[in-house]
Order: sequence, then C-alpha cells, then structure tokens
Amino acid sequence: MPITGFYKLYFSKNKTYVKQLKNLLGFVPGNLSLYRNAFRHKSAATNVRKGVKNSNERLEFLGDAVLGSVVAEVLFKLYPYEDEGFLTELRSKIVNRANLNQLARKMGFEQLVEYDARMVGSTRQGSLLGDAFEALIGAVYLDKGYEFTKSFLINHIIKSHIDIHTLEQTETNFKSKLIEWCQRHGKDISFDLVENKEGESNKLFSIHAIIDGEVMGLGKEFSKKNAEKLAAEKACEVLGI
Amino acid sequence: MPITGFYKLYFSKNKTYVKQLKNLLGFVPGNLSLYRNAFRHKSAATNVRKGVKNSNERLEFLGDAVLGSVVAEVLFKLYPYEDEGFLTELRSKIVNRANLNQLARKMGFEQLVEYDARMVGSTRQGSLLGDAFEALIGAVYLDKGYEFTKSFLINHIIKSHIDIHTLEQTETNFKSKLIEWCQRHGKDISFDLVENKEGESNKLFSIHAIIDGEVMGLGKEFSKKNAEKLAAEKACEVLGI
Repeated sequence: MPITGFYKLYFSKNKTYVKQLKNLLGFVPGNLSLYRNAFRHKSAATNVRKGVKNSNERLEFLGDAVLGSVVAEVLFKLYPYEDEGFLTELRSKIVNRANLNQLARKMGFEQLVEYDARMVGSTRQGSLLGDAFEALIGAVYLDKGYEFTKSFLINHIIKSHIDIHTLEQTETNFKSKLIEWCQRHGKDISFDLVENKEGESNKLFSIHAIIDGEVMGLGKEFSKKNAEKLAAEKACEVLGI
Repeated sequence: MPITGFYKLYFSKNKTYVKQLKNLLGFVPGNLSLYRNAFRHKSAATNVRKGVKNSNERLEFLGDAVLGSVVAEVLFKLYPYEDEGFLTELRSKIVNRANLNQLARKMGFEQLVEYDARMVGSTRQGSLLGDAFEALIGAVYLDKGYEFTKSFLINHIIKSHIDIHTLEQTETNFKSKLIEWCQRHGKDISFDLVENKEGESNKLFSIHAIIDGEVMGLGKEFSKKNAEKLAAEKACEVLGI
C-alpha cells in the first residue's frame, strides 16, 4: 500500500469512511468526494453551483458506459464462438437494473447510499442501489483509470458475485413477466395478430400486446411465438416492468 | 516508430495493406487480421470454425461499447455543468448509425470495406460503413488497449471529424423525420391522444403515432408536444428510420 493510502486509512479525519470503502471495494480510494457523490441519490443532493447537484446521476452515466465496455470485453473473450446476438443478450442480463440492484444489495450498499426516504417511493428504493453501483464504477474509473476499473470489476465483482454461466442458461421470459404483472394489477392482457401491411412478407407475423384495450407493444417476427415475445418485451419496456 | 512497425510498413508482404491502414488510422497496426475482420461485412465472410464467421459483427459489438465509453468520458469532462439527460442525448447524436455512416464515408472506408453487393440491398449499403467503423474501434482496442484507443478516438476522429458543439445545437426532430418518411412511402400518419389509464396523472398525455392505421409508437409526457415527439421517436425506432 502506498504511504498516502496508509495515512488515509489510519490517520486522516475521514478514516472511518475510508475503512468502510476499503472493506467494500478492497482498495483504498483516492479522491473521496467522487465516492461520496457516487453514493448520493438526487433526493439527498444539494446544489453545488450553476444549478449542478452533487448527486450520483452524472457518475451513473459514465459508470454505465464503462461497465458496458468491460462486460463486453469479458464476454467477447469468454465466448469466442458465439455471435454478437448472444453477446448482446447475455450482457443485458448482467447489467440490467434488477441484476445490479441485487448485486449492490448483496455487497452491502444499503449502509452507504444517502437518500431522502420522504422523496423516494418504496418501489423506487430498490433501483437506488443499482444506480449507485453504476455511479461507483464511474467514480472508480475517474479515480483510478480504465485498467484498474477493469481488474476491480473482473476480480472483485464478476468473479465473486456474478454467475455468468447460470445467467446464460436463464431466459428472460418477458411474456410471463408481463402476464404476471397484469394479474397482479388486475389488468386484461391479450396478444393480437395484426394484418400484414402491403409489401410485407407473408411469413412475417405482427403481434400487438394489448393491455386493457391499449396497444403497449408491437413485435414483428417470422414466428408467431417470437413476435409475441418481442411485443411483450416492448410492453415491459413501456411499462417499466 | 518501433522497428516492427518500420518493417511492416516497408518490407512485409502486406506492406500495401499496412500503408493503406496507416494512412487511414495514423498509426501502424499490430495484428492485421483484426483489421481485416473489422472491414469484412457478413455478406463477404467465410466460416472459420465451429460455425463462427470471420465477419465484423463480434468486433462491432465490442467497438460499440468502447466507443460509448470513450464518448461518455469526453462529454462528462467537456460539459461539467450539464446533467445526465443532456449527456445521454448528445452522446446518442454522436454515435447514432447515420452519423457514424457519414463519418466512415468521409474517412474513406468505402475503399476498405469488403462486402458482397448481391447480398446487400442498396439501402443497407450505407450502414455497412458505420458498422465497420464500430468494428474498427473494437480492433484497435484489442490491438492497442484502452488508453491508445481513447487517444486515437479523441485526436484522430473526434477533433478532426466531429463538431460536438454543432451537434449539441441540432435537435433530432423525429416527428418531421417520420412525417417525411411517410410522405415518401405514401403512408398515412396521425398522432392520436389516448385516454389516460386509471391511476395515471391527469397531466400526463399519452399519444400514439399511427401509420396506416397501425400503432407504431407510444409516447407519454407532461406536454402534448413532448408526448408526440416521444411517440415519433419510438415509431422511427420500430421502422428503422
């Protein structure tokens, strides 16, 4: 450990916070204010200047991109014989909000995230953690650079917390997800076949996912089943499920 | 220039190709097969093994992610007082397919991209170039690493070819884009206000973009104008405009 890290951990006025971060991250952070921002939800933010808040949203934007890039490389190298469709799907299973929320909870982010419960609905509280996780990646990147962030993600996060091969097997079933959601919320759902438009291949199926009479998603595919899946996926996206 | 670069450029059996790449990229590439793959569209690919083709699609997946990450950092630092919504929108203006196609054309990719014209429709030929651009970024990353790719992108591409401040000003007007497309293809278009669902705020407008009687996009916003914009954007996405 470099001498500045040693000082930070044992003698600085922030030593408690530094220790807490070191336990979480496995390394001594450099620029503490980056990490404080990463764990601050907008509900707990204050204005800094020129209308900019010290919340984690900008860091989340950056961290999301860095995370996407690292995971892309990991999968590219781990699956040399799979095509880009497979890689894209597997990556989205890893970096989707639900998975990141769960990961952040497992890692104990709840103790560190700052937010104002009065301003955050209970359903939104879960995704606070995933947002903070992405923001943390942004902070690590700015503090330590790409190669460090990549090693941190691979050795400290992916290897310990993400079972890629299990995720590979589990199919995100948007259709049953949507149907369950409708049952829970007392809504009617149907999948209706739409007539093909002129000039469109006869083999193409267009399916609407209709919830309480309203079209919420359209899927076009060469099999009816896949068109339904796509329509359900779009509807899940629109509804934020 | 290191001695291996010197050899490659003047004495190797691939010296013509190496020179062509050096003119394009401004540096001497290391692993040539990566660059050959980056410029090979799937229509010109052959099977390598285990059903994997030597096309540029996997590299495109990787390059898209690395490009997204570099551009995210550039904008994060260039606009310290803008929020993540601004950064996300500006990034998508920079890395959208139309912009990358244009960029790749300006850089002279047409001479380098390998494809089979019989298998590629004329409308698809344009996006070949943008795909190859992303794949090239993937190749540079694997060949030279993140920091090199970042400098290459900033100094050789962004500074010379992308006018970020102009892009910042131009608003992508999805509504007029969609209306133009419909006129060109002889299709009816309308934007219809949908009734709000129970429990939804009265102030929320839900608008369907309807083309030839079929719902192609839904937008929900607190102003009618913005809901229409969003519906048009979704419809453009569905139609691949």
